[in-house]
Amino acid sequence: MARARSEERRTEILRATLEVIAERGYRGATLGAVAERVGLSQQGLLHYYPTKEALLVAVLEDRDRWDTGGGGSRGEGPWPLELLGSLVEYNAMRPAIVQTFSALLGESVTEEHPAREFFSLRYSQVRADMAASLRAEHGEELPGGLTPERAATLMVAVMDGLQYQWLLDPGTVDMPGSFRDFLRLLRDRTGPDVSGPSPG
Amino acid sequence: MARARSEERRTEILRATLEVIAERGYRGATLGAVAERVGLSQQGLLHYYPTKEALLVAVLEDRDRWDTGGGGSRGEGPWPLELLGSLVEYNAMRPAIVQTFSALLGESVTEEHPAREFFSLRYSQVRADMAASLRAEHGEELPGGLTPERAATLMVAVMDGLQYQWLLDPGTVDMPGSFRDFLRLLRDRTGPDVSGPSPG
Repeated sequence: MARARSEERRTEILRATLEVIAERGYRGATLGAVAERVGLSQQGLLHYYPTKEALLVAVLEDRDRWDTGGGGSRGEGPWPLELLGSLVEYNAMRPAIVQTFSALLGESVTEEHPAREFFSLRYSQVRADMAASLRAEHGEELPGGLTPERAATLMVAVMDGLQYQWLLDPGTVDMPGSFRDFLRLLRDRTGPDVSGPSPG
Repeated sequence: MARARSEERRTEILRATLEVIAERGYRGATLGAVAERVGLSQQGLLHYYPTKEALLVAVLEDRDRWDTGGGGSRGEGPWPLELLGSLVEYNAMRPAIVQTFSALLGESVTEEHPAREFFSLRYSQVRADMAASLRAEHGEELPGGLTPERAATLMVAVMDGLQYQWLLDPGTVDMPGSFRDFLRLLRDRTGPDVSGPSPG
């Protein structure tokens, strides 16, 4: 009972955090602003999330759960590539959460950052998920002679890298269109002998 | 004469900053640590670079000048794609500056960040440079029916995105190998009718 109440509170806090992020951006999303929104003292909020980083990681984990169908909207099995294209389109309509993700990812590569473990584990998982999607749709060999695993690393890099270019210059960079360009590159099949010698 | 002296001092400061970054990482590269290294008071350092962000932007601008041949090591004309592969290999040997770039890029997408203009202008320039390189080697049409400009946006995204994955997990992610995978995707030519209908 107390546990259910606590879970409910956490859900409220995450929802309030998303609202504050949407209104004030990454830097404006302070613990104080979130506490006020949810009707807690800052001390009360720290009981649930001891740092801003812990709170933001929880928000991003929650988003991942929803986006990848853990929210119950999708069945089992690999994520279809076409749906990934739609996810990038959806992201282009919610710059504040994309900004939060990108800013925290940037911080996470600094020394002993509290979000480092989250991102490191997340990327292992996301690369594996993308490799499964690529294998399901393209088989074992993709253009350029790439394995699904090698193409997955590139696909994740494209998604993240496009977010930075788009956040910096949304009027110039067509994030969803560019991501679909990349999906087209992966569909563009040819014989392995055309791809040149392997450098490795 | 005073101007030459001042330029010399700036060069010394940038060199000291690089050393401090290499030894202590992004977060350890404080204005105080740099001032000490170069034998200035912190106040004296602020005369040259008023904020940590301004100092780091100057370091990154300096790196760009050297990397893209402004240092005098290369002639005019587009940057050969093979050299870009070597540049990524070189970056894999200097994680501290890659960490600095990636951390500052992450910060720059937050509200009114002082490094935002640097990155925004830099990406316009880098996309144009990469498009020129792609056009010189692959002509007007790349795999998937992409123009050099569209492929350039992806190439920049791949470089940046791979840096994050590699910084988080250097033992798993082969940054230079993955970048060469992407170059292979761009070399893998086939007829435009195989790439499926254009969505736009």
